[in-house]
Amino acid sequence: MTTDEYILGLTERAAATARTLAGLSTDAKNQVLQEMASGILDHDEAIVTANARDLQAARTAGLSPAMLDRLTLDHARIEAMAEGLRQVAALPDPVGDELRVIRRPNGLVIRKVRVPLGVIVVIYESRPNVTVDAAGLCFKSGNAVILRGGSEALHSNAAILEAMLEAGRSAGLPANAIELVQTPDREAVHALLQQEQHVDLVIPRGGESLIRAVAEHSRVPVLKHYKGVCHVYVDRDADHEMAVNIVVNAKCQRPGVCNAMETLLVHEDIAEAFLPNVANALLSRGVELRGDERTCRIVDQAKPAVESDWSEEYLDLIAAVRVVASLDEAIEHIEQYGTHHSDVIVTNDDAAAQRFTREVDSATVYVNASSRFTDGYEFGMGAEIGISTGKLHARGPCGLEELTTYKYIIQGTGQVRD
Amino acid sequence: MTTDEYILGLTERAAATARTLAGLSTDAKNQVLQEMASGILDHDEAIVTANARDLQAARTAGLSPAMLDRLTLDHARIEAMAEGLRQVAALPDPVGDELRVIRRPNGLVIRKVRVPLGVIVVIYESRPNVTVDAAGLCFKSGNAVILRGGSEALHSNAAILEAMLEAGRSAGLPANAIELVQTPDREAVHALLQQEQHVDLVIPRGGESLIRAVAEHSRVPVLKHYKGVCHVYVDRDADHEMAVNIVVNAKCQRPGVCNAMETLLVHEDIAEAFLPNVANALLSRGVELRGDERTCRIVDQAKPAVESDWSEEYLDLIAAVRVVASLDEAIEHIEQYGTHHSDVIVTNDDAAAQRFTREVDSATVYVNASSRFTDGYEFGMGAEIGISTGKLHARGPCGLEELTTYKYIIQGTGQVRD
Repeated sequence: MTTDEYILGLTERAAATARTLAGLSTDAKNQVLQEMASGILDHDEAIVTANARDLQAARTAGLSPAMLDRLTLDHARIEAMAEGLRQVAALPDPVGDELRVIRRPNGLVIRKVRVPLGVIVVIYESRPNVTVDAAGLCFKSGNAVILRGGSEALHSNAAILEAMLEAGRSAGLPANAIELVQTPDREAVHALLQQEQHVDLVIPRGGESLIRAVAEHSRVPVLKHYKGVCHVYVDRDADHEMAVNIVVNAKCQRPGVCNAMETLLVHEDIAEAFLPNVANALLSRGVELRGDERTCRIVDQAKPAVESDWSEEYLDLIAAVRVVASLDEAIEHIEQYGTHHSDVIVTNDDAAAQRFTREVDSATVYVNASSRFTDGYEFGMGAEIGISTGKLHARGPCGLEELTTYKYIIQGTGQVRD
Repeated sequence: MTTDEYILGLTERAAATARTLAGLSTDAKNQVLQEMASGILDHDEAIVTANARDLQAARTAGLSPAMLDRLTLDHARIEAMAEGLRQVAALPDPVGDELRVIRRPNGLVIRKVRVPLGVIVVIYESRPNVTVDAAGLCFKSGNAVILRGGSEALHSNAAILEAMLEAGRSAGLPANAIELVQTPDREAVHALLQQEQHVDLVIPRGGESLIRAVAEHSRVPVLKHYKGVCHVYVDRDADHEMAVNIVVNAKCQRPGVCNAMETLLVHEDIAEAFLPNVANALLSRGVELRGDERTCRIVDQAKPAVESDWSEEYLDLIAAVRVVASLDEAIEHIEQYGTHHSDVIVTNDDAAAQRFTREVDSATVYVNASSRFTDGYEFGMGAEIGISTGKLHARGPCGLEELTTYKYIIQGTGQVRD
């Protein structure tokens, strides 16, 4: 069997199962999720053993300490994965929600009803917990899922999946509802991305290069964000203490994530007064500052920024800083260099806040709060499969609802069209 | 200037204008729409004259009578275009709708708000009325639009647009909000489809080959349906008179459209009793029947169907007919040969209706009504930019709401993340 044949078979079986999954009751799905959680805990030792094999190979291959850490599973992390499945079981089921009911004068009743997407492919890198998260969220939303993890986590992912499937089946999990691509062959990813006939959505999770490669080659729609170059703009009329708190939080609380601030924009009228304060706060936390000319004149410790700094996602304790002449210039800057992810204005001026939130074309725009809240949990979704900076289908944090579509179900009594 | 440079400039200007459009009030937009309607009526003669040039060239080029008819504009059709704009003005404005408000325990207020998509490209064939329809719907939903009509309608489209723009500008229509691609160069379409940076959605309107060419080459998301192979399944327990009415309406009321029935499926238990009735009704209206073996045994006048009949969109007075052993076989047939557009069950059995509507994976599924109702106007949307058989973003008839996305606007009072 060639890789193409293997992938075709996998996606065909998933598509066939998707029809069954669409009809499962919420209770049936929750029971499977609970059993899968127990299955993971019951196979704790086998998972750790499999993970040790991956870790040994990864050490031999010379993976970085950060990547080894991401790959590592211990009892606490396995507990957390099981707990994640239980939390998904506790979430409301979006499938079957009536989004709208239209009663037409001719007596037709048109119901717009939420239904699963069908088959979802998730392509991810070293973290094996994605195997559990993605399987849980896709299953709860009534979708079949095909998982393609990183080759460095192959044994870990296989052990996790085996534990989940064995337990799940005992509670009625249909065959082919959750599948793992069993070959490390890179051709398999390419073949998956061509299956527009059987796959409804691809979700890549990992670094920018993985996501770009998927988006470049996929014939299936992709839910994605490449990177988060997030801005905090401190307006002329802002509470300086609040602004410092927000900037420090957005930059330092967890610098390695996509909703962290990368660039600080400051209105020129307050630059002299505000920049030294915020610079001190950032510098004392070890943040390197890269400023435009005016920033460097006010803040001695700032290094001169180069053009590429404005579009860089540092994911580190580095911040670009620029003084702008106006709200318009701030919006222009964000439009030119931003990534439509999360952008903040700190202001007491309602008119400025309104213009900023209307004109900044990002998935999430904040007034007087840290960009770090762009997250499914923080939004109250209970879970997150990813964040989208695209405008079609779903935007911002994506949870269970964003893994669904709708259909129109029309009930008649024999109506025909004139 | 090369074609690529021309298209890049066009899309950049449209994207810049999109920000202004997103902030226009409903009243301002409606006034522009009313003025554009008047502008078309005022330039009635100029439009007819320009249209005559296109018609003459089309006759010389040997276009079919059907295509000539589609291209022709007379006073009645110009009136209808103006009336269409007035109707769009009367529709509710989706922009600014609050889809959800989430109040978090930390005091953050997260509003999910409907906003325009940004820049929409519409690519269409000979009907010049699409110029007006698409411009009106995109503008009302706050989007900039770039129109690319068929080369055979170039003069007509230019005259219509000039009339609309001149009148619109006098009422405050921003520059570059509605643009027509001014070159018949085919390279221009390809260049447009590569502008993922500035274009948010492409809507092709026309025949299957146009739509496939657009989908094949586009890096921008495409709202589309290739074709409509729609089914009516007459279940074992169906009202025969109702079933005949629905089948005749779905097939004959307007056979050349995508929501017309192409294939009739009949449960074997009622085939002997039902098929002669429905066959007579269809034959008496000039419909050619192409049946499977069992159908041909019951209906003498039916010709034997070949495999390709089951997936053909006839757009004509031809129907494929098949006897199926069960509801399951009907669903399987639709899954295998259908196009996820509009499919009908005629039944008195609630359980069968429920299974059909749940398991048939189409944008619109009907119980006891004609498939011909899949239409934005019939759904009460007031207008339609197209029909989508994709599952992402929008499904089924698409009106103003489907030309929007949402953003999250978060109001804080200084919240930072722990």
